Amino acid sequence: MGSIGKERTIVGWAATDPSGVLTPHTFTLRNTGPEDVFIRVKCCGICHSDIHQVKNDLGMSRYPMVPGHEVVGEVMEVGSEVTKYKAGDIVGVGLLVGCCRSCRACESDIEQYCNKKIWSYNDVYTDGKPTQGGFAESMVVDQKFVVKIPEGMSPEQAAPLLCAGVTVYSPLIHFGLNQTGLRGGILGLGGVGHMGVKIAKAMGHHITVISSSDKKRVEALEHLGADDYLVSSDKEKIEAAADSFDYIIDTVPVNHPLEPYLSLLKVDGKLILMGVINTPLQFISPMVMLGRKAITGSFVGSMKEMEEMLEFCREKGLSSMIEVIKMDYINTAFERLEKNDVRYRFVVDVEGSDKLVQQ
Amino acid sequence: MGSIGKERTIVGWAATDPSGVLTPHTFTLRNTGPEDVFIRVKCCGICHSDIHQVKNDLGMSRYPMVPGHEVVGEVMEVGSEVTKYKAGDIVGVGLLVGCCRSCRACESDIEQYCNKKIWSYNDVYTDGKPTQGGFAESMVVDQKFVVKIPEGMSPEQAAPLLCAGVTVYSPLIHFGLNQTGLRGGILGLGGVGHMGVKIAKAMGHHITVISSSDKKRVEALEHLGADDYLVSSDKEKIEAAADSFDYIIDTVPVNHPLEPYLSLLKVDGKLILMGVINTPLQFISPMVMLGRKAITGSFVGSMKEMEEMLEFCREKGLSSMIEVIKMDYINTAFERLEKNDVRYRFVVDVEGSDKLVQQ
Repeated sequence: MGSIGKERTIVGWAATDPSGVLTPHTFTLRNTGPEDVFIRVKCCGICHSDIHQVKNDLGMSRYPMVPGHEVVGEVMEVGSEVTKYKAGDIVGVGLLVGCCRSCRACESDIEQYCNKKIWSYNDVYTDGKPTQGGFAESMVVDQKFVVKIPEGMSPEQAAPLLCAGVTVYSPLIHFGLNQTGLRGGILGLGGVGHMGVKIAKAMGHHITVISSSDKKRVEALEHLGADDYLVSSDKEKIEAAADSFDYIIDTVPVNHPLEPYLSLLKVDGKLILMGVINTPLQFISPMVMLGRKAITGSFVGSMKEMEEMLEFCREKGLSSMIEVIKMDYINTAFERLEKNDVRYRFVVDVEGSDKLVQQ
Repeated sequence: MGSIGKERTIVGWAATDPSGVLTPHTFTLRNTGPEDVFIRVKCCGICHSDIHQVKNDLGMSRYPMVPGHEVVGEVMEVGSEVTKYKAGDIVGVGLLVGCCRSCRACESDIEQYCNKKIWSYNDVYTDGKPTQGGFAESMVVDQKFVVKIPEGMSPEQAAPLLCAGVTVYSPLIHFGLNQTGLRGGILGLGGVGHMGVKIAKAMGHHITVISSSDKKRVEALEHLGADDYLVSSDKEKIEAAADSFDYIIDTVPVNHPLEPYLSLLKVDGKLILMGVINTPLQFISPMVMLGRKAITGSFVGSMKEMEEMLEFCREKGLSSMIEVIKMDYINTAFERLEKNDVRYRFVVDVEGSDKLVQQ
């Protein structure tokens, strides 16, 4: 199984400075180690956090940076200790490619909360090399962070599940919300929000999309199958809906008041934050205390949950709603995503892109 | 059992305006209805929220107002439908005296979260009369909101358990923290905080008191039995304690930053707010998301939990640390409590106070 090959020189699209503009970039990938899977990338979804990273919004960016963490590809070669995958398998890679394996989080199979987790790009691997993401010809990934894509699921459909999908699936499972009859709210209808509607509906929930305007009403109700739609500025309707939600998944990635949404929660309801927002969010303590409500959050999901989520989506026949683009459209796609101008996820057809090569 | 007597005229100490100064006040108590228990007050604890109420800090005060919601007394008479109590029993009354009995909270035995709950004072009872609290000769209370004080527990010792005690006991039970070996933090060492240390220690937890200064170190460690002591401004020690607490009970009743305490929590740790603070608290979303932490809170406890908590305290031999005062000292006590100058709870010996009568 799997020869330990030489270091490979490949091409990906990288940002080279905080302008965030991606251009072809040649770099090397490590040899396929005993636990590694060498994957030829087929496609890769674009997540809003990719924009934060390439533009150094979080102040931690290293360049050149090849983003992309919703990667689907074909296994080309596996290391000598890899038994779970073989050449020809269609597999996925998400936001993480490493963890310490010995802390409480790792030992509890929630390695996404390991303090030494290694991000799939914009991080440094155990060999000291920068990690690079999925907008590239190929990746070498430790088998622990590789997941099998179920038979019959198209690579493009699967890609957004690997971050957006598991990001909503994980808290619904962890917080005990995987039961029929619950009433949930999805705040914000982007890549994560649209998967939230689909996954929560498939769990048998009554789902209300909450949005800042009326613009997405028809698509939320008719295309995505939401049960109700609330405009957050409509005070009358917000008041009428008080105390009626078991949870709200808050995908809004910019600062916003929390009180209106806390008021919508039932006793013991949960406001689950998914947006990385670096300015302080605010709330008044009685809004939490007087209903034993919780402001909490969640960060992607474990590899175990990733597997379960893919199987759940296969069983339920869930698909993501995507716009497939070629690699050379990625900078335009980033611009459109910043304006929320996509229904609901861009997926780059990496394998089918002519312009992947260095120019 | 229990004649349905005439309305009684009694004396309590009431605030008559937002100065919050208490003076003797004559008022009437309703007849003992079929479900009612007529109680002669023996003693009553002073809670920090009494100060908020008498001073109209929450903007909802009605005068004249007799505060007091940690009431222990002797049953003098019971209504015809009351079977659980009889004359001579020593009983307690806490923060609430009524609820709707039909909402989801009431049906789940968490009537403290009923939207139609009736507060023991500064509220209106079902008969349209104002409710008045425990700094008075007597009270008439629906049997549902009366709890038996266990044999052998002194009334003065029991009083603080009826609010401060159940306030910390309830979330520890509800959030699944009633297990040995957990590491907890108690932020703020007042009436609620000191009961927090005692109850959590009795559950077998490793308890760190977190305080704004070093002043209470000796008493926390030596008198209350805490295991450790952290000064919140000591950045080095706070950093060293990162990721080490399963929960923090935050009893601070004024605005304060949450980030330092969120950083102390382990993955899945809970920051449990107990202070009613009307200016917005702030936090940064990644601090919550990246450890799946929760900012939550809790409000007193149910009558069921009140019973359990009293039994727990009896079994474990827990006592509160109190300063017993007479009724005519109450205004001074309020002033001292505002300066946090009490170890740790004032309890008014109502029965033994000469000056309860109208002057």
